[in-house]
Amino acid sequence: MNDNAASRIESLRTLMKQEGLSMYMIPDSDFHNSEYIGEYFMCREYMSGFTGSNGILIVTLEEAALWTDGRYFIQAAREIEGSGITLMKMGEPDTPKIEDYIRDHIEAGMRFGVDGRVLSARKGIKYEQIIKKNRGAMKSDYDLVNEVWDNRPSVSKEKITTLPESITGESTADKIARVREEMKKHDAAGFVLAKLDDICWMMNIRGGDVECTPVALSYAYITMEDAYLFVHPEALNEIDARILEQNGVTVKPYDTFISFLKSIDPCHSGKVMVDLNNINYLIYDILNASSEMATSRSISRNKESLIVDVVNPTQEMEAIRNSTQLKLMREYYIKDSAVLTRFLYYIKKTGVHIGINEYDAAMKLDSMRAQIAGFMELSFPTISAYGPNAAMMHYEATQDSHADLKPEGMYLVDSGAQYLGATTDVTRTIAVGPVTEEMKRDFTLVCVGMLRLADAVFLEGCTGRNLDILARGELWKRGVDYKCGTGHGVGFILGVHTGPQNIRYKYNEDIREAVIKTGMTISDEPGVYIEDKYGIRTENIIEVVDAYENGDGHFMRFEHLTWVPIDLDLIDTSFMEPHDIELLNAYHEKVRKNLYDLMVNDDEKKWLSEVTDPVAI
Amino acid sequence: MNDNAASRIESLRTLMKQEGLSMYMIPDSDFHNSEYIGEYFMCREYMSGFTGSNGILIVTLEEAALWTDGRYFIQAAREIEGSGITLMKMGEPDTPKIEDYIRDHIEAGMRFGVDGRVLSARKGIKYEQIIKKNRGAMKSDYDLVNEVWDNRPSVSKEKITTLPESITGESTADKIARVREEMKKHDAAGFVLAKLDDICWMMNIRGGDVECTPVALSYAYITMEDAYLFVHPEALNEIDARILEQNGVTVKPYDTFISFLKSIDPCHSGKVMVDLNNINYLIYDILNASSEMATSRSISRNKESLIVDVVNPTQEMEAIRNSTQLKLMREYYIKDSAVLTRFLYYIKKTGVHIGINEYDAAMKLDSMRAQIAGFMELSFPTISAYGPNAAMMHYEATQDSHADLKPEGMYLVDSGAQYLGATTDVTRTIAVGPVTEEMKRDFTLVCVGMLRLADAVFLEGCTGRNLDILARGELWKRGVDYKCGTGHGVGFILGVHTGPQNIRYKYNEDIREAVIKTGMTISDEPGVYIEDKYGIRTENIIEVVDAYENGDGHFMRFEHLTWVPIDLDLIDTSFMEPHDIELLNAYHEKVRKNLYDLMVNDDEKKWLSEVTDPVAI
Repeated sequence: MNDNAASRIESLRTLMKQEGLSMYMIPDSDFHNSEYIGEYFMCREYMSGFTGSNGILIVTLEEAALWTDGRYFIQAAREIEGSGITLMKMGEPDTPKIEDYIRDHIEAGMRFGVDGRVLSARKGIKYEQIIKKNRGAMKSDYDLVNEVWDNRPSVSKEKITTLPESITGESTADKIARVREEMKKHDAAGFVLAKLDDICWMMNIRGGDVECTPVALSYAYITMEDAYLFVHPEALNEIDARILEQNGVTVKPYDTFISFLKSIDPCHSGKVMVDLNNINYLIYDILNASSEMATSRSISRNKESLIVDVVNPTQEMEAIRNSTQLKLMREYYIKDSAVLTRFLYYIKKTGVHIGINEYDAAMKLDSMRAQIAGFMELSFPTISAYGPNAAMMHYEATQDSHADLKPEGMYLVDSGAQYLGATTDVTRTIAVGPVTEEMKRDFTLVCVGMLRLADAVFLEGCTGRNLDILARGELWKRGVDYKCGTGHGVGFILGVHTGPQNIRYKYNEDIREAVIKTGMTISDEPGVYIEDKYGIRTENIIEVVDAYENGDGHFMRFEHLTWVPIDLDLIDTSFMEPHDIELLNAYHEKVRKNLYDLMVNDDEKKWLSEVTDPVAI
Repeated sequence: MNDNAASRIESLRTLMKQEGLSMYMIPDSDFHNSEYIGEYFMCREYMSGFTGSNGILIVTLEEAALWTDGRYFIQAAREIEGSGITLMKMGEPDTPKIEDYIRDHIEAGMRFGVDGRVLSARKGIKYEQIIKKNRGAMKSDYDLVNEVWDNRPSVSKEKITTLPESITGESTADKIARVREEMKKHDAAGFVLAKLDDICWMMNIRGGDVECTPVALSYAYITMEDAYLFVHPEALNEIDARILEQNGVTVKPYDTFISFLKSIDPCHSGKVMVDLNNINYLIYDILNASSEMATSRSISRNKESLIVDVVNPTQEMEAIRNSTQLKLMREYYIKDSAVLTRFLYYIKKTGVHIGINEYDAAMKLDSMRAQIAGFMELSFPTISAYGPNAAMMHYEATQDSHADLKPEGMYLVDSGAQYLGATTDVTRTIAVGPVTEEMKRDFTLVCVGMLRLADAVFLEGCTGRNLDILARGELWKRGVDYKCGTGHGVGFILGVHTGPQNIRYKYNEDIREAVIKTGMTISDEPGVYIEDKYGIRTENIIEVVDAYENGDGHFMRFEHLTWVPIDLDLIDTSFMEPHDIELLNAYHEKVRKNLYDLMVNDDEKKWLSEVTDPVAI
């Protein structure tokens, strides 16, 4: 793999020289700025060998550098070893930001190349400013990786289905009406939506163009009268097309979107609303050219841009679940939790003693989940990690490369699925034999963090940054941190990592934080990762519910959606306050209540009762 | 007072009509955007009758509205009763922001008036944009209040003294050199500094132009070669002038600053650095006019503004204490704590039984503090509040209006002083007789919040928003909040409320949050305020120290600077976790150790030992 990366980068440099480029950027996105992308779009993975979900590669004629975040530092370092690529650890004090790297490397007369379709508009605008300031030039109409990439997969055009209101709780027509209300607030005549999760939410459609994320490659354009959906014609059947039509949606071919966009005349039709973080640079470029043309030819209008940059209003709408969704989620989370609990029972009682390997364990869990009625696919590849492998946050065992479980230490499993009514995500770490005091301490501190965050009550207006320390606080007191966020939004039959809500501590004045609101669903997943030793993560999904409404304001709290025992073999109550133990016992009591009838035999039931027994304070 | 306000507003309206103004704004600042201001500048107080430190009055021909923050809701409502002014509770969901109010009230052709000298440049720019967008006009060369105000006090010109390096720990010349390094980073040839605290820090001078804040009315202008200080000539003696001169500072008359500013030619001299939040709108207007003239007359330069807007680099420099300062602060805080402790002993044992009143109690405490060698003045008027009066966060008892202490319920005292080596600020609430279970619960939860925040360990990069929930969390769990921040920066022989650091929970995407750094000093003061019943606040000042430096990063923690017993008569341990009790006991052990020798007789010593005895877990 590393030799591959080195030679591919050399091929790219040959092309760069032909094109007169000093620097070429390979982002990690598709045309829709998706976090998870179809195979066709995996240019950065192809070029660097790094398989994680977040990474940006910049190649100059002399250097190559890969930026990724704390989840992937260990994995990325291994995967790019020998490739000649430098690892840029994002967020570390000594790591230059991408924009600083560009600023330091682009000089007057140099040319910077990128495929503008896979770069977010916001970043593209920022990079262009930097490059122009250095008197360089940015060229965004390249796809040089395409020329290097032999046997590149073709673009996915999987089948699209519509979801009934019994699952979504709201019709497409009603959702579009809500979107139009937001457009009115911004005085916008049109709204370009390119984010796949948002389009699928609004149109009540699901597809299969991205592994583990049931989205369809699509664009949407909404006006006060019309709603256009651009999808691959072969992906949509007649019945679903008719349902969309009944909701006021006109379906058009995916490949005609760019020419459609060019035909929009903001001078006649009015302002166009976009989210510059969620459209690609090409879309921006087209709209900007139309806008400039419109303002220059009309003397009656002022010179205000005709592009209105907003956060996609669909983002928060998607993030707030209605009662239909929450009812389905609660049901599916119990079923999903029961399967994971039975799997953990199997691993503890049988799996580890027959030396099952990580890959087979994942396969077993995946097949158990697939038995649940309504199962569609996994929501992400199962992370099944024994011992030191669990220190890699996004480790993936394969048929060829995996460890065998032994009756000592810990095993971590992070998994989830897409169901016709929920997207799940859950992590448990269990003892599979004797464990050290250090492991018990760290496990207990992680458990305490998870429980305390879920126990928070907070006022309206709080964002994840207000709450993160509840999960991290006891680790920090001992000089320990985990290099990732504490929580991410969880989609509804959509991406398992979603937004806008999250739970993080880092301050970034350039990023607008999302206020946490009733009906949102968020993960709560502190951890401890000791390289080459062990990894611990305990992850529940929690929903936001109302707590108090009084003269001091509107208070909210969380309820658990996930109900899987926390391994008492790893708990050392000397690291817990009495209230932490109360929280653990209360949680376990509900776990037993929710799962008991879903255990399939008396042994499982007996075990469940044992492992959810209250711990003495 | 209220009748006064009503008639003064009527007089203002007469002037507004003469000037053709539809709206007139009266900010609460001096020419330096100070939080606390000299008497000459108290226009808003004069016009509205509201005496709090934060309030903005807007008068239209029909309405008058006063914006203030949560600390003052109760007080402001009382003080403006009957004046016809509407109270605008800032931060409440239904309260329009000032800019929204302007937007809703200014229509095409209307004129908005304000004194540009007492409005921050940032706000002025924002308001002007809104007004222009509504096709109104903003006029900023008025001081209409001056015409209404009979017997307006004159501008203060108190004596200025320089501070030796044995107190400041750093010479003026060295400070200016550090400032020049920051200017270089921004490619700035000049730096206009108007913020009084920052000027006094940089110049190592102190004055007396603002009550309780030993600053001198001044401006500074720094270039790579020169440093100008503008002060009232009669305020500075020859010796201090010579010390400044030895540090490379040229002293000029305060009143010549504006003409000096007009003479700066950015076309010849280069970019001018300012902090738009900390210069007034007039300064901005002058610089902007010069900048526009310079760019229009020079074709070789690009059209970039010659004004560089930054956060004053002096702000963070002032906020981070050096070892000389910290040593002095620790010493003075122990002395200051001892006096407050002896005062609390007096109130509990004697004061309440002789029915001392709030005002006399404050006088007694103030006179006790004045005995400490190095005492200069109070750092703010002592808040001495019995019973329901303590629910007003910034209550001030006067000789004419005060309550008598009775042997029941609680008494709150918030006080501090300026010493030649520290600015102190401390609040304690004590039982002065029987108290209710409710009071004990709230007091205990406040105490727990104060101790937990002070016990935090946190990674580099955290701001106050990451930590606030540690103080507020247990109150929030019971649906209780306090309508103010948890902590503010504390100056060094300067304003007792300073920045940039603070501890708050509210998210404001427009405000840049300050990262908390080693050497900063911050207040930690949660509270509970029940209108018409009682108020509780426990306030310590804490300093930021290093905790761990390892592979996971640079961790910091706090140390208490304040050492005053927390009243065990108000503690109900059933609301504390064992660790909270450990923190309380550990704190009290240090209180005893630090204060024992400063108690002046055996009774005090005996009492100190009793009230700092460990509580059983």
